[in-house]
Amino acid sequence: MDVTRLHYNEQGLIPAIVQQHDTGEVLMMAWMTLSTVRETIASGETVFWSRSRGERWHKGATSGNTQKVVSLRADCDADVLLLQVDQQGSGACHTGARSCFYTAVEPDV
Amino acid sequence: MDVTRLHYNEQGLIPAIVQQHDTGEVLMMAWMTLSTVRETIASGETVFWSRSRGERWHKGATSGNTQKVVSLRADCDADVLLLQVDQQGSGACHTGARSCFYTAVEPDV
Repeated sequence: MDVTRLHYNEQGLIPAIVQQHDTGEVLMMAWMTLSTVRETIASGETVFWSRSRGERWHKGATSGNTQKVVSLRADCDADVLLLQVDQQGSGACHTGARSCFYTAVEPDV
Repeated sequence: MDVTRLHYNEQGLIPAIVQQHDTGEVLMMAWMTLSTVRETIASGETVFWSRSRGERWHKGATSGNTQKVVSLRADCDADVLLLQVDQQGSGACHTGARSCFYTAVEPDV
């Protein structure tokens, strides 16, 4: 599927799930635009759109924790991306953790 | 983390990544509300919010392709969920595929 045929939301964004290609660990989820999807493919490293900063975000550009893209797939509705990567450096999370998903969710009742 | 402290978006929704617990395969991504997160925890099966139909959606209720929840975690920003499940039946995708992520994305240049 061509990148222009992906379904971006009303803000021009598509969710991108990032998974370590060999272990299967889900590292993070962030958002991409058409432009950063193209840049991700062209560069072979993940480039997202930071919603909080309102700017392009080349993951690991300053920390060295880049993500080398192994595969890029869309889901059946073409509105979610799954990137299998090789995570470089210490990890994907800004906290220093390998994965962002380290917090157990508990019932409130 | 308590389910009420998760960050739901302006529509009251939070993305939920669903992963087969033992193989690591990412099966799908869908959306939950506070109410369906609670129902997922209480029932032990995934319950989403269908944005297209505007209604609660107990995954597999009619097809038998339910998802037994093994773990539920939030990311570091508490605005994305990762559910590890045991997928029942033939698969997660409405097309009959095991995973929704079977479409390769290609550059357009």
